Amino acid sequence: MTAVAWAGTQSVLLKRCARPLAKLYFEDFQPGHTAEYGPRVVTREEIIAFAAQYDPQPMHLDEAAGQKSLLGGLGASGWHSCGIMMRMICDGFILNSSSMGAGGVEEVNWLRPVRPGDSLTLRTTILDKRTSKSRPDMGIVRIRYEMMNAHGECVMTMVTPAMFGRRHPGAPS
Amino acid sequence: MTAVAWAGTQSVLLKRCARPLAKLYFEDFQPGHTAEYGPRVVTREEIIAFAAQYDPQPMHLDEAAGQKSLLGGLGASGWHSCGIMMRMICDGFILNSSSMGAGGVEEVNWLRPVRPGDSLTLRTTILDKRTSKSRPDMGIVRIRYEMMNAHGECVMTMVTPAMFGRRHPGAPS
Repeated sequence: MTAVAWAGTQSVLLKRCARPLAKLYFEDFQPGHTAEYGPRVVTREEIIAFAAQYDPQPMHLDEAAGQKSLLGGLGASGWHSCGIMMRMICDGFILNSSSMGAGGVEEVNWLRPVRPGDSLTLRTTILDKRTSKSRPDMGIVRIRYEMMNAHGECVMTMVTPAMFGRRHPGAPS
Repeated sequence: MTAVAWAGTQSVLLKRCARPLAKLYFEDFQPGHTAEYGPRVVTREEIIAFAAQYDPQPMHLDEAAGQKSLLGGLGASGWHSCGIMMRMICDGFILNSSSMGAGGVEEVNWLRPVRPGDSLTLRTTILDKRTSKSRPDMGIVRIRYEMMNAHGECVMTMVTPAMFGRRHPGAPS
């Protein structure tokens, strides 16, 4: 995995737009809105490298062990899938936003194995949003993420409440 | 991070016991039971390396940017904390068990920043368990995880339903 491989989504969008995308604030997220990012190809080498460091269960390290497991073959650690998704989220819109982070994740579902060579796309859906009572400069946007493989199968979903800065702190929401 | 650094918990336990720990099956998890694993020291280098690959938001890469953020200083990506926790879980008991993986995570809460030099310990609590109706060789154990720093502060919690093989498939539970 290289910086070049990761440059993907946003650089393509930037070229299309011929000028930088406007920075996203809390006000710009509209409930019901969806977007897609990617694709991003996963390699055998990175699946094994991640697993060796963070989740060295045999089915994430070895093809034969994977075949004997519920994964039915070598498959990425679910936490690696989360990392891949987070990178797609960063490159997709977070790095061009007023993101202030997230206090957690409401749910993660690993629905199908992520395999070497899989080409993944990310779909985002804005669920709802609210301003913060304690911090007038901040709002919380709940976002649903779905990661799909090239067969159109959903491999993973996640829902997270993300904190974003407001363009107009304290204004009526 | 090296294999030596990770050998930690279990090798100490093995020496104490003077024989390998018995492999853990579904039957061995008792609701209410707690255990502790670690410690595991987090380095600045791995915080930055993980963020550069999976979550390149400025507060995970740079001290000055971290100070301007809600983290109040350089802090690990929440997904890095998840990876560190997963490795502690693997070394703590999963690699010595009949683990069949997990279909997801019920919740993740990132409560406090994980800093360079933090020494983390992991506490597990068995919440409940049930046998699988569709797979008599499997049971699901819901486990709550809490990761603490050296100040005794909880930096992260997670609840996950984990699948384990049964020592006696199909036996009355």
